[in-house]
Amino acid sequence: MPEIPYKTYLSEKEIPTAWFNLRADMPVKPAPLLDPATRKPCTAEQLGHVFCDDLVAQELDDNRKWFDIPGEIVDFYKMYRPSPLIRAYFLEKALGTPAHIYYKFEGNNTSGSHKLNSSIAQAYYAKKQGLKGVTTETGAGQWGTALSMACAHFGLDCRVYMVKCSYEQKPFRREVMRTYGADVTPSPSDTTEVGRRILAEHPGTTGSLGCAISEAVEYAVTHEGYRYVLGSVLNQVLLHQSIIGLEAHTAFKKLGVKPDVIIGCAGGGSNLGGLIAPFMGEKLRGEADYRIVAVEPASCPSFTRGKFAYDFCDTGRICPLAKMYTLGADFIPSANHAGGLRFHGMSSILSQLYHDRMMEAVAVEQTSVFEAAEFFARTEGTLPAPESSHAIRAAIDEALRCKKEGIEENIFFGLTGTGYFDLMAYATYNDRKMSDQLPTDAELNASFEKIPQ
Amino acid sequence: MPEIPYKTYLSEKEIPTAWFNLRADMPVKPAPLLDPATRKPCTAEQLGHVFCDDLVAQELDDNRKWFDIPGEIVDFYKMYRPSPLIRAYFLEKALGTPAHIYYKFEGNNTSGSHKLNSSIAQAYYAKKQGLKGVTTETGAGQWGTALSMACAHFGLDCRVYMVKCSYEQKPFRREVMRTYGADVTPSPSDTTEVGRRILAEHPGTTGSLGCAISEAVEYAVTHEGYRYVLGSVLNQVLLHQSIIGLEAHTAFKKLGVKPDVIIGCAGGGSNLGGLIAPFMGEKLRGEADYRIVAVEPASCPSFTRGKFAYDFCDTGRICPLAKMYTLGADFIPSANHAGGLRFHGMSSILSQLYHDRMMEAVAVEQTSVFEAAEFFARTEGTLPAPESSHAIRAAIDEALRCKKEGIEENIFFGLTGTGYFDLMAYATYNDRKMSDQLPTDAELNASFEKIPQ
Repeated sequence: MPEIPYKTYLSEKEIPTAWFNLRADMPVKPAPLLDPATRKPCTAEQLGHVFCDDLVAQELDDNRKWFDIPGEIVDFYKMYRPSPLIRAYFLEKALGTPAHIYYKFEGNNTSGSHKLNSSIAQAYYAKKQGLKGVTTETGAGQWGTALSMACAHFGLDCRVYMVKCSYEQKPFRREVMRTYGADVTPSPSDTTEVGRRILAEHPGTTGSLGCAISEAVEYAVTHEGYRYVLGSVLNQVLLHQSIIGLEAHTAFKKLGVKPDVIIGCAGGGSNLGGLIAPFMGEKLRGEADYRIVAVEPASCPSFTRGKFAYDFCDTGRICPLAKMYTLGADFIPSANHAGGLRFHGMSSILSQLYHDRMMEAVAVEQTSVFEAAEFFARTEGTLPAPESSHAIRAAIDEALRCKKEGIEENIFFGLTGTGYFDLMAYATYNDRKMSDQLPTDAELNASFEKIPQ
Repeated sequence: MPEIPYKTYLSEKEIPTAWFNLRADMPVKPAPLLDPATRKPCTAEQLGHVFCDDLVAQELDDNRKWFDIPGEIVDFYKMYRPSPLIRAYFLEKALGTPAHIYYKFEGNNTSGSHKLNSSIAQAYYAKKQGLKGVTTETGAGQWGTALSMACAHFGLDCRVYMVKCSYEQKPFRREVMRTYGADVTPSPSDTTEVGRRILAEHPGTTGSLGCAISEAVEYAVTHEGYRYVLGSVLNQVLLHQSIIGLEAHTAFKKLGVKPDVIIGCAGGGSNLGGLIAPFMGEKLRGEADYRIVAVEPASCPSFTRGKFAYDFCDTGRICPLAKMYTLGADFIPSANHAGGLRFHGMSSILSQLYHDRMMEAVAVEQTSVFEAAEFFARTEGTLPAPESSHAIRAAIDEALRCKKEGIEENIFFGLTGTGYFDLMAYATYNDRKMSDQLPTDAELNASFEKIPQ
């Protein structure tokens, strides 16, 4: 075998002790969250009704470069981190590419994804503030699972609003959350005012992420000792997820390898923002150059077909406005879209970087994504999550380009998680019943009209 | 944090390059497989109709201490091995025990268990012999998944007979196997003579492991270019699984720690036999002493309530006779028994060692097993497989004994896998609907009567 091992593990002592705040290196900062009533930037006090105080401080700080990771969080990280940086020797061989392919695998924990990196941080600050519990929404279920695990660790009450169609189609995700002690409610529900309103207006609805967010926020702000937590989009989440990129950066340094292209799937941006953080920092500071590629579903194409504008993050329009690439707060991807990556907007940090042409974006269709997933599973052994498989698709395409051009590039992608709870989607693919259904221009234009001016 | 890390990973260069054959150190060798017609030991030629030639050689060799692991298998191992040896700091703290608890975690691969260690070896030898494919049975589904992955790697046809009730209750396991290209048939089926016979005799049957074995063996011996492979019980399987114990032994040496008690769950014995191999070798050679504990389900208590006798391994009675602790080839655990560990017999190696009082055995009831599983998930983060949770139960009981007695022992157990495909059983537990149903003495005696004299 060659000198570079299949898996590179850092030691536990090499787990980063500070998160990296990419905003500190951005010449143009991401636009602030706005109060929808006044159109003025949200104050820490306003946000403090929804989020924990320490998390609000992280959310609003565009300038501090490093945030120390509290020891209790580092200890928890030691249960499943550092995650391995893997050289995809078998995939390279199967593709016959001269490219070297690497991936950072975040799926080796029971949440099945990178989401645990931020959930444990958010639960820690909630506990520190003396709260009773937290509320959240979950779609595919990874975030809800990660939050249940974090809340079990700190003895916090965990109340999850799960998009109704996922609740019904993914009973096993629900059971994992219950095993960790979480209370899981299908959304929309009659437990909140916004839920009752949406149920009255759309009696047969199977729910959406935007609607579940509205319910979770309402519950938090109307119940003493509760705050709302979110698994993606927010600056604080990208901050926590920087641990992915920091570990990868250290591992590449040890191997003496520099990635040429860095690829991540993008829904709200939690994985991509964390994966690229230190690399993008170097790029912004002019210390190194990388091609950075966001991969999104063609059925939910925020970057490639969305508007860069202030918009609501939730269907109920009770959250602050965020400036981002958006498809409109009422946008719901086609029912045949499997898995996550279904949020209508995108992290403000990543939106600004994309707007400033610091990164590229591609949209891929799900049938080709599952082809890549199956190929990856059979060569590299791990059954990938549908979300992660978007990055696999793009990495394979880059590797095939290298093959065609006869060049040896280092391709690096984020494998955010495993597909063990996505077998209904795999069954559809195995039965050759999977199809692609993209939004039409007319549909998107109708959705754009509801974006506030 | 203390000096001993949470997770100890060996480097890929430290992956063992030879499997350890525990039989070489046994003063009393395990009894040989017998031809049921002649009652004489099966010859290599006879076994060669069922198994690959190299595997037959491994099966029959009681004296060779080390078998080199072929390079292609070592390379495959590098995709998911070495597996971590984990210090259960959070579990210790939650129990308030002075004991130090360690576990070897084999679940970080898509098969979700240790089964991949042997399936890749068996697929390799099938490929080397120029075969077209292999057949097998699967119950809980871990072995079938592991074999599909191994066959995908070597381009072999993989035909899995899956116990009908598992096939219906675990559609997702089935889909994983299909994703890796396997052909999965619910057993009993009309694709074999023995299947048709069993269906005629028991029209409503939901199948059993013994019946699925009969079908898989029949398919293999009646089709050109096929052989049968088995995930447990056989000597060759314990040989391959010795990699678990060898890695653990090296890791403990590096940490300067000697386990006092070694605990493994036991169904057919694949995990337990592999986990204990080098430690039991030391014990047999008088170089070190360890308490070694097999943990089995009270609903399928081969060691603690079975007979030590020659018996059939399959319901159809077409396989050789093995000398083992057995509940009788027709024994089927109560329908409310969840997960694996449902084979009526036990590895001949482990049976002989137990008979010679080199190890202990305990039987635990499943409600207490799921209590331990939930406690473990909430403290150590990983959702364990029901099978593995038998070992967790026993490890917790040992840790509580240490607490009571005020002594600091090193407790080591095997965490064979994850419970991501066992959420129906967890749901039953979460809904407080789980019960225990043990075989009565009358039932066992009726079953014992069918053991050949």
